[in-house]
Amino acid sequence: MKNVLLAAAAAIGVLTVLPAAAQFAKPEDAIKYRKAAFTVMGTHFSRLGAMANGRVPFDAKVASDNAELVAIASRLPFTAFGEGTDLGETRAKPDIWSENDKFRAAAAKMQEEVAKLEAAAKTGSLDKLKAAFGGAARSCKACHDSYRED
Amino acid sequence: MKNVLLAAAAAIGVLTVLPAAAQFAKPEDAIKYRKAAFTVMGTHFSRLGAMANGRVPFDAKVASDNAELVAIASRLPFTAFGEGTDLGETRAKPDIWSENDKFRAAAAKMQEEVAKLEAAAKTGSLDKLKAAFGGAARSCKACHDSYRED
Repeated sequence: MKNVLLAAAAAIGVLTVLPAAAQFAKPEDAIKYRKAAFTVMGTHFSRLGAMANGRVPFDAKVASDNAELVAIASRLPFTAFGEGTDLGETRAKPDIWSENDKFRAAAAKMQEEVAKLEAAAKTGSLDKLKAAFGGAARSCKACHDSYRED
Repeated sequence: MKNVLLAAAAAIGVLTVLPAAAQFAKPEDAIKYRKAAFTVMGTHFSRLGAMANGRVPFDAKVASDNAELVAIASRLPFTAFGEGTDLGETRAKPDIWSENDKFRAAAAKMQEEVAKLEAAAKTGSLDKLKAAFGGAARSCKACHDSYRED
């Protein structure tokens, strides 16, 4: 299953964004960057959640724009989990590095679910957005439960 | 000049991204979000700078990908400078709110220069990238000098 996910992710390019540019001068730069990318992703994801859960009125254009930003942001953080970025101002658990294949697979799963969410949002259908939102939210939570300190 | 910039920005949509979704539950959420967007923008901008200044070899694909991310990120922070977001963990100067038209014009100028930088990067020409990089860097610095505490 893991390999299938990794292969799927590689096929659609989600794990291979900007590899040559994935260098940070200092580990703390990488940590700051990945936290920033997650903050951007989380902000726009929560706006989709507000619509999916009926807390704010559905607006197809806003949903589509937010889903696009979530998808773009979802591709960014994983270049910034290199060696030496496990210490400092981070809630990243050591398991990220000790079972890195599993972590990468979980990231790929999230990116796959977010890609589905973006596709759903672009249909303009609130029902499709709701259906895709749950899977994406679960993929976020799964990774946080395993790899992020509370 | 300011109005020309604002009109140009409005025409290409750079100041009007996601207005309906530009709501944050708490001022600190807005502050965290805009700092995150600037961190993402700055990281990718510095990678373009490294190529423009010859510190790393020019790679047209990497330059194009980074410039695209800079352009996307440049549209995000300015929804997050609403009333009440002047206090807290921020280096934003009060002038942002007391002369908000000037601040918005400076932001629009930056977005315009970044759009030129993206277009230059997409040509695949290092010379064009170098030429556009300077103007974009100056537009960043102008805003930081006026509106960000050291």
